Amino acid sequence: MREVFQQSLRDVQDRLVLIAELVEQAITEATTAFGSSDVGIAEKVIDRVEEIEILAAELDQLTIDILARQQPVASDLRLMVGALRMSASLERMADLAQHIAQLARYRYPESAIPAGLTKTFARMGALDVEMARKIVDLLRTQDPRLIAEVRDLDDDLDELHAKVFEKVLSDNLAETPANVVDSTLASRYHERFGDHAVGIARQIQYFISGSLD
Amino acid sequence: MREVFQQSLRDVQDRLVLIAELVEQAITEATTAFGSSDVGIAEKVIDRVEEIEILAAELDQLTIDILARQQPVASDLRLMVGALRMSASLERMADLAQHIAQLARYRYPESAIPAGLTKTFARMGALDVEMARKIVDLLRTQDPRLIAEVRDLDDDLDELHAKVFEKVLSDNLAETPANVVDSTLASRYHERFGDHAVGIARQIQYFISGSLD
Repeated sequence: MREVFQQSLRDVQDRLVLIAELVEQAITEATTAFGSSDVGIAEKVIDRVEEIEILAAELDQLTIDILARQQPVASDLRLMVGALRMSASLERMADLAQHIAQLARYRYPESAIPAGLTKTFARMGALDVEMARKIVDLLRTQDPRLIAEVRDLDDDLDELHAKVFEKVLSDNLAETPANVVDSTLASRYHERFGDHAVGIARQIQYFISGSLD
Repeated sequence: MREVFQQSLRDVQDRLVLIAELVEQAITEATTAFGSSDVGIAEKVIDRVEEIEILAAELDQLTIDILARQQPVASDLRLMVGALRMSASLERMADLAQHIAQLARYRYPESAIPAGLTKTFARMGALDVEMARKIVDLLRTQDPRLIAEVRDLDDDLDELHAKVFEKVLSDNLAETPANVVDSTLASRYHERFGDHAVGIARQIQYFISGSLD
């Protein structure tokens, strides 16, 4: 029975890694689409998020089947419940990548980004991409050093999020209301993406150490 | 064993109802704070969300204990997994109520709402409050009519969400960048609150009918 569970666990892990890889790809492309107002890439991201939703639903079903058939207890049970939570976070990260791509498509052929914020959003996107990549590695290796790295990246992201509002509210930017709306939403989406990455990192830390902090 | 599980189920249900009632109270007060720039009420909401987080964490722990000790299968297992999901949604709804209250506090003594949108936000808040109340009733009674009602309210909410952007982007409103930022975020928070309510309604529909649509 133990061996069966170990095999199930590897299956769950492999699926989480696959979904995380697709999320990394989605946020990478969403960042490109948003930065360069590339509506073709934006549509690719938007279309592909459905695939991630299906994979996440299949993973949830598998997890529930394992709970029902193998009835794990103690730490094994926690791993399964944790997998359900991580699956929900990854799905939400994919949604957020989709929202960023939708902003780019909606405003096309205009840019959704006011001129003074191009670099800030490029940096926010790069941070999200880096966090997504570290989540892939963390799911694969459970290397605890990655947990602190994800948190540090999220701190940088929060600083940039605050900076977007400062810039938007200063009079130096000759922004239109549309630019203000887009910047506000995009910044919020990037920040939430980072929050979900931290949530996954915390979940894995809990498995490794048995403690949430 | 069956009787023990039924008792556990009632315990889970009672806790979900209690948390939903606190969420209803939080969104009611957040809407008041936001509409009237009442920083006292805003702070009350902000402080009280921690209580909801603790109750949700306790419910999750209880659910995991039930899974471990009673090892439910089939529909009972789905109820427990569903409880975990609904707990996460309710916690997120409380966070969103807190965010709305934070907008009111942050902009105080100014109003976060541009003059032309006062009625729209009052209506969005009222819709969120009504949805939260219906979720309380739905958790208590499982009356399937409430599910359609929650969905209808969410459709109204989505229309208002679109209207906020239309208004903000029209030139008729003499809005400041701060008003545009606040309106964008507040509208998004209200809309997400409604999405989570629909998610809970769908979850309960699944328990009642065995189907997600």
